[in-house]
Amino acid sequence: MLSPILALESLLDTAGELPVNVKVLFEGEEEIGSPHLGPVVEQNRERLACEFALSADGFQGGEDQPALLVGWKGMCALQVDVEGFQADLHSGVYGGTVQNPIHALARLLDSMRSAEGEILVEGFYEDVVDLTPGERSEIAAVPFDEGAYKEQLGVGELFGEPGYTTRERAWVRPTLEINGIWGGFQEEGVKTVIPKEAHAKITCRLVADQIPEKILRNLSSHIRRNTPPGVEVEVHPEEATAPPYVVPSDHPGNRAAHAVLEEIYGRPPHYTRAGGTLPVCGIFLDLLDVYTVTFAFGLDDENQHAPDEFFRLASFERGQNAYRMLLARLAQQEGLSA
Amino acid sequence: MLSPILALESLLDTAGELPVNVKVLFEGEEEIGSPHLGPVVEQNRERLACEFALSADGFQGGEDQPALLVGWKGMCALQVDVEGFQADLHSGVYGGTVQNPIHALARLLDSMRSAEGEILVEGFYEDVVDLTPGERSEIAAVPFDEGAYKEQLGVGELFGEPGYTTRERAWVRPTLEINGIWGGFQEEGVKTVIPKEAHAKITCRLVADQIPEKILRNLSSHIRRNTPPGVEVEVHPEEATAPPYVVPSDHPGNRAAHAVLEEIYGRPPHYTRAGGTLPVCGIFLDLLDVYTVTFAFGLDDENQHAPDEFFRLASFERGQNAYRMLLARLAQQEGLSA
Repeated sequence: MLSPILALESLLDTAGELPVNVKVLFEGEEEIGSPHLGPVVEQNRERLACEFALSADGFQGGEDQPALLVGWKGMCALQVDVEGFQADLHSGVYGGTVQNPIHALARLLDSMRSAEGEILVEGFYEDVVDLTPGERSEIAAVPFDEGAYKEQLGVGELFGEPGYTTRERAWVRPTLEINGIWGGFQEEGVKTVIPKEAHAKITCRLVADQIPEKILRNLSSHIRRNTPPGVEVEVHPEEATAPPYVVPSDHPGNRAAHAVLEEIYGRPPHYTRAGGTLPVCGIFLDLLDVYTVTFAFGLDDENQHAPDEFFRLASFERGQNAYRMLLARLAQQEGLSA
Repeated sequence: MLSPILALESLLDTAGELPVNVKVLFEGEEEIGSPHLGPVVEQNRERLACEFALSADGFQGGEDQPALLVGWKGMCALQVDVEGFQADLHSGVYGGTVQNPIHALARLLDSMRSAEGEILVEGFYEDVVDLTPGERSEIAAVPFDEGAYKEQLGVGELFGEPGYTTRERAWVRPTLEINGIWGGFQEEGVKTVIPKEAHAKITCRLVADQIPEKILRNLSSHIRRNTPPGVEVEVHPEEATAPPYVVPSDHPGNRAAHAVLEEIYGRPPHYTRAGGTLPVCGIFLDLLDVYTVTFAFGLDDENQHAPDEFFRLASFERGQNAYRMLLARLAQQEGLSA
């Protein structure tokens, strides 16, 4: 976020003006799914009108690996509530005679995914646009060290949908992850209850052309069809939905960004995707009818979201310089008005 | 607990002596599995030596349904810890590429029980003594209102091991119940993490001739064999173990109790069992070589363990009277020294 602002300041300080018109929008709610951004953009359509948007939220592939990010995943989220009884039951008196809400929830969650990692929710993959051989080659061309990845995470083996590489799973295949689960006794020792209820939170990351609302309906149907006997299950969709987002790699903004990255790094950037979700991209496309081009200088080893998250000092300078170059190039490029 | 003490007091007040010798032992840790009772009994073997023990912890079948309880289930307990990563992961960045500890735990728990309710842990039923047709008839003869049972629990349908009645499931079939589960995000809203770990607590209620330590070993083996790829699983057995307990229905103490109940209620008692666990019975049998006869006047609708647990005032009087009659009968009965 700092790099483009510093670039604007330094351009104004030295040249006294910017090579193109620039409007700046700050948003501070991205981490909670941008719940208020849509209405704000809608109310300010005219003030925000533009050729395209630039976002500083993204990654390069490494200090010597330029990358141009052309896709973010969408998202939908829900909570599953399994209700058994009016109160916790004594597991000695009632054990074996009633459905255990935790066991029912475990069965329900297990029904959503095969042992191998394929999502079994009916219709989940229905709208997914198949990868072309060209796209698969593009992704395969991006350097990836699986050993380093496992070491970074501290896992002995990776796991995911059969038939796809780790990069493809992370970037272009939809996922279903359980984010939390709870029910019954969670403290030290033993409490012999059959808990009256159990709960889980689930988020799906979606890819083109999946529709968040449709996936939520598919999930609800799957849960209804697979609810074990003896419990009631309620599904509560969460507000945090976003459509998947893909920007054409030959978009004028991407063409300019490509040229600047090649000039800085001395080699052309790879086209990459991200498994994360950036609601602003979908909101701008929907309400302002403009694409968002990602031009960002974070690296993926910077412990995003962790207490020790960091950003390289060198990346500040590189990013600031890159934004100055990009604005200058955009002023010269055809198809974009200054 | 009060009934026998009041009976002793009233006998001493009126007759000045008791018809048989009585030793009284109070224990206050039954609800946490009697962890200290064994050593205390062991250190006081001689002082506690007796013909048999009487316990006031149990049930009658109803206000007009006498019952003689001849079996308690045993117990073993464990915690399952599924470990994935060093820290929670971003579900957008890493989703779909690593095993999710909650999904792994759900799969593991689901592997322990069939959709129909049979326990699938290898060897779980191996040492279970088959019910004789006579025992099944005895249990079937005990009045049971399934509609009232469902209404009391607030469930639409019951659930349990195929091939057995609800009473048999509760009284004489071993059970495996999940008492608690937790992992990841449990608060309101959405947090897009793949949690680093997930946990569950399990207790099994055991019947003759299952051995708690062997069942714990079977569970550990099952968990080892069924651990999904990409996570580590640790099993922590809990201290709360107790062997199943059965007292012969023709034990001299039961014969005396049978006669007293028949006299009070005007009909012979049914022989019943309980799904709960009373460690003292196993401890006395093991260390003092004596059986414990249950002579108790609770009823099973008294909301045991709940905040509104109650005991009928009439049962105080009935129990006190019954204990006076029982002690008098024991003094006359052959095979028991006064």
